[in-house]
Amino acid sequence: MMLEQGIAFVGRTQVQVLTMEPGYVKMMMPLQPNLNHVGTMYAGALFTLAELPGGAIFLTTFDVGKFYPIIKGMDIKFVKPAATDVTVEVKLDLDEAAKIQEIANERGKADYEWECEVKDANGQVVCVSTNRYQLRSTTPRSA
Amino acid sequence: MMLEQGIAFVGRTQVQVLTMEPGYVKMMMPLQPNLNHVGTMYAGALFTLAELPGGAIFLTTFDVGKFYPIIKGMDIKFVKPAATDVTVEVKLDLDEAAKIQEIANERGKADYEWECEVKDANGQVVCVSTNRYQLRSTTPRSA
Repeated sequence: MMLEQGIAFVGRTQVQVLTMEPGYVKMMMPLQPNLNHVGTMYAGALFTLAELPGGAIFLTTFDVGKFYPIIKGMDIKFVKPAATDVTVEVKLDLDEAAKIQEIANERGKADYEWECEVKDANGQVVCVSTNRYQLRSTTPRSA
Repeated sequence: MMLEQGIAFVGRTQVQVLTMEPGYVKMMMPLQPNLNHVGTMYAGALFTLAELPGGAIFLTTFDVGKFYPIIKGMDIKFVKPAATDVTVEVKLDLDEAAKIQEIANERGKADYEWECEVKDANGQVVCVSTNRYQLRSTTPRSA
């Protein structure tokens, strides 16, 4: 799949897209290729899983011919060590997405953000992240 | 070097330790193996570079027989796309490190944090990160 293999760094983690549709994405990061020195998942792999839905939601939910996304920042809290494969789910309301596009269309850019949780195989939250993005118009705004 | 190769995920990025001494570490993340789909450095590689000094500073600056570090969280801001190899430097004052160890010795744990900047080959800051750690004692605290 393009999203998993288009970036070599991402491909090397062996992350998998489980579901990807307008306004919704679910992904899985496997433990084995991403172990740290104490046998749990390395922080960089947890970050990568929390970050990737940004691109996936963009591709399924926004007009990719008119806009592109910028990641402005992420605040990630590590709640518990991850000792299993982990998953993340992100939902973006389609009405909210339409409003973001409207603003980006008018002003050339629009900020948006979401919170997401990364959970282990037992449903335990292992990290929580606030992701801040900006949608930018690919065309100069009209006068 | 142990720090670069001890975690497979980290080894795959080809990150390099340039300097590692008590209270100071400098590392370099190469662009080529960490490109994103638009030819700049993938966010996960920038995060990884900002995160790694946590372990390096621990190894050179704290008593590794008595303590271990936990990463509690990171707030990372992406300021500018990175189109070259990038470096990070972290300094931890040795007196401050001694105080952190004292507290961890007394209470079993001690929080500490620092800010760091990731810079490109032209000295331009590409991301800024606040890293929050906790030093924990490997032995139960005395009564």
